[in-house]
Amino acid sequence: MTGRDKWPDLAGCIEGDAHHLPLRVYYEDTDFSGIVYHAAYIKWCERGRTDFVRLIGLNQKELHDGGAEKPVQFFVVRRMEIDYLKPALMDDVLEVVTRVSEIGTATVELYQEIRREDTLLFKAKVMIVLINDKGRPQRLTSEILQAFTKRCSDS
Amino acid sequence: MTGRDKWPDLAGCIEGDAHHLPLRVYYEDTDFSGIVYHAAYIKWCERGRTDFVRLIGLNQKELHDGGAEKPVQFFVVRRMEIDYLKPALMDDVLEVVTRVSEIGTATVELYQEIRREDTLLFKAKVMIVLINDKGRPQRLTSEILQAFTKRCSDS
Amino acid sequence: MTGRDKWPDLAGCIEGDAHHLPLRVYYEDTDFSGIVYHAAYIKWCERGRTDFVRLIGLNQKELHDGGAEKPVQFFVVRRMEIDYLKPALMDDVLEVVTRVSEIGTATVELYQEIRREDTLLFKAKVMIVLINDKGRPQRLTSEILQAFTKRCSDS
Amino acid sequence: MTGRDKWPDLAGCIEGDAHHLPLRVYYEDTDFSGIVYHAAYIKWCERGRTDFVRLIGLNQKELHDGGAEKPVQFFVVRRMEIDYLKPALMDDVLEVVTRVSEIGTATVELYQEIRREDTLLFKAKVMIVLINDKGRPQRLTSEILQAFTKRCSDS
Repeated sequence: MTGRDKWPDLAGCIEGDAHHLPLRVYYEDTDFSGIVYHAAYIKWCERGRTDFVRLIGLNQKELHDGGAEKPVQFFVVRRMEIDYLKPALMDDVLEVVTRVSEIGTATVELYQEIRREDTLLFKAKVMIVLINDKGRPQRLTSEILQAFTKRCSDS
Repeated sequence: MTGRDKWPDLAGCIEGDAHHLPLRVYYEDTDFSGIVYHAAYIKWCERGRTDFVRLIGLNQKELHDGGAEKPVQFFVVRRMEIDYLKPALMDDVLEVVTRVSEIGTATVELYQEIRREDTLLFKAKVMIVLINDKGRPQRLTSEILQAFTKRCSDS
Repeated sequence: MTGRDKWPDLAGCIEGDAHHLPLRVYYEDTDFSGIVYHAAYIKWCERGRTDFVRLIGLNQKELHDGGAEKPVQFFVVRRMEIDYLKPALMDDVLEVVTRVSEIGTATVELYQEIRREDTLLFKAKVMIVLINDKGRPQRLTSEILQAFTKRCSDS
Repeated sequence: MTGRDKWPDLAGCIEGDAHHLPLRVYYEDTDFSGIVYHAAYIKWCERGRTDFVRLIGLNQKELHDGGAEKPVQFFVVRRMEIDYLKPALMDDVLEVVTRVSEIGTATVELYQEIRREDTLLFKAKVMIVLINDKGRPQRLTSEILQAFTKRCSDS
């Protein structure tokens, strides 16, 4: 039994147009003020994006490694707008909720929330851009475009 | 439905004398050499210990916060012996396996492994010690002793 | 000789209205794509703010711990707008440049840049808010107000 | 003026057989228990090793990237033995002290301490091994051997 079969929830799940990734707050995420360190939310959003992209059928490592016929391509964050609304605490069970909000030529804009059950703790608009190994923006391939469009809340 | 019910695997599970915590390797865990950064394993072991302790019925936040009748107490790491055997990679599904190997007056020694399916990547002996808010070692309470003893591989 | 005397540059320096904090890119800051992980910049900005606040005479640990006559107060990040312009790389020497851009009743807005010599890699507008131990915004004390106002680029 | 000239202390300094790297404890290094998170010390040791290696004339990025005539080689941690003696706290100024303790065919053993002025907080024996891009141990080149031997406390 592979890891994926044994732990089916590990990459979260897609419900409607949103990806939900569960996570736990550990020591490493907190700071001496007693609440979660503000950069931890940024890491959690990246985990949410990575698993969202995994579940819609794109593999970032494959994108990155390229292949015999494929150039190296990967997504990087270009811009973020972030609101910290309420603090998360040690031992909390949270969900990162990720939605596609806009698709451009080389960019995808995602809207991400971090929630503790019904309480919204954090929200962010995140623009990612597909670049090559020289850092140049790349037109989204039809494969990528299709994968995201299917999940876009506007479509 | 609370987070715990919706995501039953989030704290891993106890099988026999061992706790198993699944985890995924994300961007944040890797470094420019292309493999997982060596301190990431240390964080993962702490996640494993925290969820192990959670599942045997001890709550580190409660221990730490104390209460009307309870002094502040918490576990800290006193000593680690660590072997890095094989590298973990981006996107890997791993398991942190945690076992109690020895119980002292104020200390518990754990043996932890990180595995990718059948491959052992990392192993560590970790001694944790119960301290109070002045940093002084505290005799393990009978509640703590009992929780760990039940899971001790020697018993 | 104390640490502060031996390493005078450790908290950076204030030049005109800007605080400059030097830092080095280490393994821990990079990811498998070969460049700096995007959340590392967020940590670096927090280091810049902490040392800026230290050099203008406010100590976050003292603020946080309060005292016999002082309530617990600390700054948390409320909002960030972030642009990633060019990637930082392993071994780079960078500077975090921090300026006050606006002062409100309970909030301070900072403008932060991360530069590699003359190249701007990253910029952010960061709004911090002073809260008490219940998470409620607190009017900036005259001591805090004065410390920031002296450094405000508008004043 | 380059970053290196402007901030001469950034990579610490070598005094006798030991490299000293100063560092500050920031929010990111602490956890909700109020003291420094145990994995932070592991990162600090890596910063110490990286700057030690930088000052004795080896560049890890160059080693890693190889070149026209050089194979890809880099150091990874193989084994660590770690003792946590006393906790570091927010705002502390610390020093990572790094010494070579033994040189093998493909390995170097380092002894590292973390101190707050005269107080020893943490000590570690760290074995690093030179590997190629297949993960195979590589005999230390004479250039590497010489750089380390000059600093070896036994020599």
